[in-house]
Amino acid sequence: MDHPPTGPSAPATTGRTRLDSYVDRYAARTAGMTASEIRALFAVASRPEVVSLAGGMPNISGLPLDVVGGAIADLVANQGPVALQYSSGQGDPTLREQICEVMALEGINAHPDDVVVTVGSQQAVDLVTRIFCDPGDVVICEAPSYVGALGVFKAFQCQVVHAEMDADGLVPDALRQAIAATRAAGKTIKFLYTIPNFHNPAGVTMTAARRAEILDICRSEDVLVLEDNPYGLLGFDSEPMRALRADDAEGVIYLGSFSKTFSPGLRVGWALAPHAVREKLVLAQESATLCPPAFNQMAVSAYLQAHDWKGQIKQLREMYRERRDAMVEALGDFMPAACRWNVPHGGFFVWMTLPPGIDAKAMLPRAVTARVAYVPGTAFFADGFGSGSLRLSFCYPTPERIREGVRRLAGVLEEEMELRATFGAKPPQGEHPLPRSGYDGPGTDLS
Amino acid sequence: MDHPPTGPSAPATTGRTRLDSYVDRYAARTAGMTASEIRALFAVASRPEVVSLAGGMPNISGLPLDVVGGAIADLVANQGPVALQYSSGQGDPTLREQICEVMALEGINAHPDDVVVTVGSQQAVDLVTRIFCDPGDVVICEAPSYVGALGVFKAFQCQVVHAEMDADGLVPDALRQAIAATRAAGKTIKFLYTIPNFHNPAGVTMTAARRAEILDICRSEDVLVLEDNPYGLLGFDSEPMRALRADDAEGVIYLGSFSKTFSPGLRVGWALAPHAVREKLVLAQESATLCPPAFNQMAVSAYLQAHDWKGQIKQLREMYRERRDAMVEALGDFMPAACRWNVPHGGFFVWMTLPPGIDAKAMLPRAVTARVAYVPGTAFFADGFGSGSLRLSFCYPTPERIREGVRRLAGVLEEEMELRATFGAKPPQGEHPLPRSGYDGPGTDLS
Repeated sequence: MDHPPTGPSAPATTGRTRLDSYVDRYAARTAGMTASEIRALFAVASRPEVVSLAGGMPNISGLPLDVVGGAIADLVANQGPVALQYSSGQGDPTLREQICEVMALEGINAHPDDVVVTVGSQQAVDLVTRIFCDPGDVVICEAPSYVGALGVFKAFQCQVVHAEMDADGLVPDALRQAIAATRAAGKTIKFLYTIPNFHNPAGVTMTAARRAEILDICRSEDVLVLEDNPYGLLGFDSEPMRALRADDAEGVIYLGSFSKTFSPGLRVGWALAPHAVREKLVLAQESATLCPPAFNQMAVSAYLQAHDWKGQIKQLREMYRERRDAMVEALGDFMPAACRWNVPHGGFFVWMTLPPGIDAKAMLPRAVTARVAYVPGTAFFADGFGSGSLRLSFCYPTPERIREGVRRLAGVLEEEMELRATFGAKPPQGEHPLPRSGYDGPGTDLS
Repeated sequence: MDHPPTGPSAPATTGRTRLDSYVDRYAARTAGMTASEIRALFAVASRPEVVSLAGGMPNISGLPLDVVGGAIADLVANQGPVALQYSSGQGDPTLREQICEVMALEGINAHPDDVVVTVGSQQAVDLVTRIFCDPGDVVICEAPSYVGALGVFKAFQCQVVHAEMDADGLVPDALRQAIAATRAAGKTIKFLYTIPNFHNPAGVTMTAARRAEILDICRSEDVLVLEDNPYGLLGFDSEPMRALRADDAEGVIYLGSFSKTFSPGLRVGWALAPHAVREKLVLAQESATLCPPAFNQMAVSAYLQAHDWKGQIKQLREMYRERRDAMVEALGDFMPAACRWNVPHGGFFVWMTLPPGIDAKAMLPRAVTARVAYVPGTAFFADGFGSGSLRLSFCYPTPERIREGVRRLAGVLEEEMELRATFGAKPPQGEHPLPRSGYDGPGTDLS
């Protein structure tokens, strides 16, 4: 591929010229630690002239900084010696009670003793994988799935088996087939990793009927469920869905986060686990960090006490809905007819399937030159699929910038299609030839 | 053993009666995750009537909470949208520059680009082990060594090989023998883990001559050094020693922390690593947490800018020296003649060797009943040794409480010795029969 360079202002790649004299000494798992496509993108997409539809950063501009600052100043003044000291590996008891109140909004009836606080829910994925997965163990993931979780599974040398989604979420038959095929191959399934609400990157939400069916399958097949739910309270059109965990306390580990409803910079997430698993998670947490930061936990706790956090979430939902609307409208106005996308009812992301023959990853340098960034679909598959799709984030830019970004991307796409038409290039490897009809979800990449 | 129960106020052990239905599903590494002796102690020793000489919590009562509160309030007001947002996996650039200034106090000339910020230096141990160690790989550790690091090595299924220390620190011949014996057994050494300053738990400091010799051995034997240095700036009698890393930038990974010089509740530590290793550490950090908390890093950075932190460390040194003096004086005043201990020149810990036949772990319930707690030496060995020794912390209680705690412990010991004399019990397994003479360091447990 002979794409133009991204210009003289592209940041230099550091250290690539230095040899790694340690290359033969790393653990086998380190081979699975490679820079994600998202990571390489961050540096480029952060240039101000680029409209980034790539990142998943929440828009925290609406946070009441006076409230947050006041709560934290009080915390230092009144509880400084506790907040600045070591604490327990499991996490602050008051915060764990408040976390149970948050989860109650999704129908979960849990005891604070079964909650483990983590350094963002990313660390919860890491700790769960650490305690369950030996090299070669299988984790079943939706197709596509969250890039950060795929990175953890890879780093612990798991094999990811993808199961298709449609507009109603994970497809039960696809899950059944994935379980059967994996077991037929003599492999061990450790858990199903699923993001039921406002999926990252797919944008779809698992329906209530599907939830019941997926839980049934996992119970009868004895497959543990890892329910990752950072966006559940950020629905635009309805009350929060009932969590999978609400209907199965023993078969589901539930992960939550304050990163999208309050602040990602504090890195406070949690896992709710069956009691025995919770004990292992605490031991893993102690090994990983001794304890998550007391300060951050108490800061979140103080914010929840000092502020109308439910009202704040309502504001966030309205802000993100406006941005979703801006993106969907712009897609309709500008995108070539052969493109398809879904309309998410919450969260941060739209999943778009490109016209046949267009490779999202190969197109990215042209897009960045045209001052718009996105994440190619391949980032969300463990197996090289997804080249015909991409993820568009509407969480961070203003509605005006979103519209401009989509306009720029449509221009790039049209040029790309013209080139294809002129030179008749073949579709790149791993791409599904045609999006299916009658379907507004993701997942055409795995048939 | 039929020790008396620790009384009705002892916290109930939760969950022990519930069966773990997941017991067959965990990863092999999870078998290595067990509750440390220190962990079980924390609950008991935190009762106010117990003088805890067990924990390693820094005494942060002297922190200028007004300065800290002001710096953090300014941070929220002026940089809230950055401090509360996602950040980079490697850590805040300004803080990394300041970290280089801190390390310069120990003769290290480093570039901020080679620093990775971690969630306490515990996470740095975790990430280094994660990228280097396959199951069965060997880590050479001092005898005794830091319990939290031993936990990480165990969790990653490493084999720990201990090498003896004396009053000058790690013994070069012991290191040579450990390397040779390990390699003769066909095993792979991944690194030497060492705490050169004010060792936890041994209290000793590696002399300058020893440092040169240890580095020579590691260079000629091609063994990577993991230098863990949380206490280096907390010397009582002299300026900071020159770090191992100061004399070998390619063969040493250096770990530092703000937990002992500022606040453990913010969980800000770091690793300084050769460039190629640094890249792997960043990838491992991204997989583990996406990024360490921006807020905490900027809070530490603001504190370092707003406050005379070197003056603060001077105050800490004086406070800890006073406590060390109180402990050493009380040991001399109260302990039976057959006990031996060292006099640390910094840090938090005294290592004490008990009279022949006394088992520190077996004695602990009696000690707690007598309202004093310590950590038995076995916690600091991977191989069951150390039963004839214990760690005494002087960091947290007041000098008066330290003296009272030592007095109580001496009483328990004398009763124990009397019982032994009366009933002639045999020394427990794994105990070295006699402390060596001419030696005021630890390590009599591995001969």
